Amino acid sequence: MFKAIVSAATLRDALDSVSVLVEECKIRLNEDGLAIQAVDPANVGMVDLSLDSEAFESYEADGGVIGVNLSRLEDIAGMGNAGDLVHLELDEETRKLHIRIDGLSYTLALIDPDSIRQEPDIPDLDLPAEIVLEGTHLDRGIKAANMVSDHIALRVDESEETFHIEAEGDTDDVDLELTRADLIDLEVGPAESLFSLDYLKDMNKAIPSDAEVTMELGEEFPVKLHFEFAEGLGQVTYMLAPRIQSD
Amino acid sequence: MFKAIVSAATLRDALDSVSVLVEECKIRLNEDGLAIQAVDPANVGMVDLSLDSEAFESYEADGGVIGVNLSRLEDIAGMGNAGDLVHLELDEETRKLHIRIDGLSYTLALIDPDSIRQEPDIPDLDLPAEIVLEGTHLDRGIKAANMVSDHIALRVDESEETFHIEAEGDTDDVDLELTRADLIDLEVGPAESLFSLDYLKDMNKAIPSDAEVTMELGEEFPVKLHFEFAEGLGQVTYMLAPRIQSD
Amino acid sequence: MFKAIVSAATLRDALDSVSVLVEECKIRLNEDGLAIQAVDPANVGMVDLSLDSEAFESYEADGGVIGVNLSRLEDIAGMGNAGDLVHLELDEETRKLHIRIDGLSYTLALIDPDSIRQEPDIPDLDLPAEIVLEGTHLDRGIKAANMVSDHIALRVDESEETFHIEAEGDTDDVDLELTRADLIDLEVGPAESLFSLDYLKDMNKAIPSDAEVTMELGEEFPVKLHFEFAEGLGQVTYMLAPRIQSD
Repeated sequence: MFKAIVSAATLRDALDSVSVLVEECKIRLNEDGLAIQAVDPANVGMVDLSLDSEAFESYEADGGVIGVNLSRLEDIAGMGNAGDLVHLELDEETRKLHIRIDGLSYTLALIDPDSIRQEPDIPDLDLPAEIVLEGTHLDRGIKAANMVSDHIALRVDESEETFHIEAEGDTDDVDLELTRADLIDLEVGPAESLFSLDYLKDMNKAIPSDAEVTMELGEEFPVKLHFEFAEGLGQVTYMLAPRIQSD
Repeated sequence: MFKAIVSAATLRDALDSVSVLVEECKIRLNEDGLAIQAVDPANVGMVDLSLDSEAFESYEADGGVIGVNLSRLEDIAGMGNAGDLVHLELDEETRKLHIRIDGLSYTLALIDPDSIRQEPDIPDLDLPAEIVLEGTHLDRGIKAANMVSDHIALRVDESEETFHIEAEGDTDDVDLELTRADLIDLEVGPAESLFSLDYLKDMNKAIPSDAEVTMELGEEFPVKLHFEFAEGLGQVTYMLAPRIQSD
Repeated sequence: MFKAIVSAATLRDALDSVSVLVEECKIRLNEDGLAIQAVDPANVGMVDLSLDSEAFESYEADGGVIGVNLSRLEDIAGMGNAGDLVHLELDEETRKLHIRIDGLSYTLALIDPDSIRQEPDIPDLDLPAEIVLEGTHLDRGIKAANMVSDHIALRVDESEETFHIEAEGDTDDVDLELTRADLIDLEVGPAESLFSLDYLKDMNKAIPSDAEVTMELGEEFPVKLHFEFAEGLGQVTYMLAPRIQSD
């Protein structure tokens, strides 16, 4: 059983943060809210999303799992204005999701969850450095790195107490230095890892520009990026595997 | 003889509603205003446009016919701001149309009207249902249908007194239900027909978003769409042939 | 030695006016400001740019020459908001330009100036007519000409005291007539020349829409276009070779 009402904006934010990695996903319809875990086909990027039942106007579910095509569902959510309410109701028999927005009814055929890639086991890493920064700073660093390379290094300078977003190109280099004054928070620790810029660009697209991003970082370890949406009732954690420096 | 002055916005609105169906058309330069009738190459969509002489700043004509390339004429009208006046004058000898907008002179070679597809004979159908709705509602239904199919059904539910814009895809369905409260006016009658979405999308492009659209509908009959522009002095009627339901 | 600070907007305006003609250029780092002269690969269009040291927040240079990739440098300048200050510093040993904008450091590899096309010798022509007009008028004439041809004629009518931007297409013609009242200034003289529209379109892209353009024109002679940026502290002169009328 699943029956819920949610604003089009909240639904879109939730879907967007998953669709940058995968085309299809399983949605767990837990009693206390929705949960999605997914990993991209190359096993490089993972997402762990939860949307609390309190983020909904109304929410009833008893623990089922549905499989959805994300771009299809995003298109439907896009038929409403940000404040419009989206009514969702699962028809258990036909395995279709009935969606209503302001007079418009959409019947979405679901995907067999067993045909969707296994949900990842997101490891509980204890990473030595934590950087809390504005989404706009991360965005600027990614744009700059993109001018010279398709890799990006994230690094904490322990003695200077600065965080660096860097890239080395064939001829040119960039370095965005963020000091304690630029950052919201910084826990220094040995941290420097190289990542695929394409993945980070995709993840960054889903981060609202006014979001606070919490980044956990180590030495040649995956990075974790955490941010909230829906006034804190929605939580997204991305994990991105590092590139080997000697590449 | 033809000599007229009209605002760039009115001229553009008139041309746009015809150019969604055909590239070239005949313009009848009647004493009481312009008239255009055209049918697309596949004989599926027709347009009947009239622009009253009172929509012009000044207007003199004696019943000639000219052939024009619509996109060329639209480009020229686009060289003026909405309120700019466009001066049109036919040179009968050279068969060229002299166009002036704010210091810019354009000499447009006309097309031999005999080389343009015959104007259609738009049938005077007496269709059982009439729906008057806001252009934005039609637009929303078309966008929704476009997510799942390349056909669109228009239907009146006589008992519920509702109008439906529907589409059935391979897996998903959509249905935009408009009640009497959503509609400007509704005359119920047996009405359900299927249409090519591409044509309706094109026609919809030419309908101003703030326009009232009057739709006449029957059972497996053509649909007629009527709207006004130029403060009611311009009239457009589209007619679109139905698809056979068993397709 | 070269060390300077300049607003991102001023730097972008300077680079844009050169990059419409060439991909790489030499920048002369004179004591009193920057200077760039360049000619396109076909030897048809030339640009002569100077940016006074007073246009900078701070400026120190002693007459060196550097070679740069313009689109790369434009991308970097684009990383700042219009009012952001760009810090430029030349490392003579490594032949790299260090660029800083608001925490972002960029190390730009320079190009050997000897590998860049020779700077042109811009001839000091004494042309008989001079037209001073708003950039928006030139823009309108170019757009109109572009509808019918890939050539454009610039012409002064000495008896009418008007300036004409004209184009003849295979079937259609356009003529934008600007009278003394439309122009900022006009010195009449025998002047009519035909130009490649592509070049003029590119040059026009770099002319700010609120700029005054001074045009010097003769009979089958090159045209000179002059405008200012950075509140008059930056100067650009384009020279464009004529097409032979009998083409």
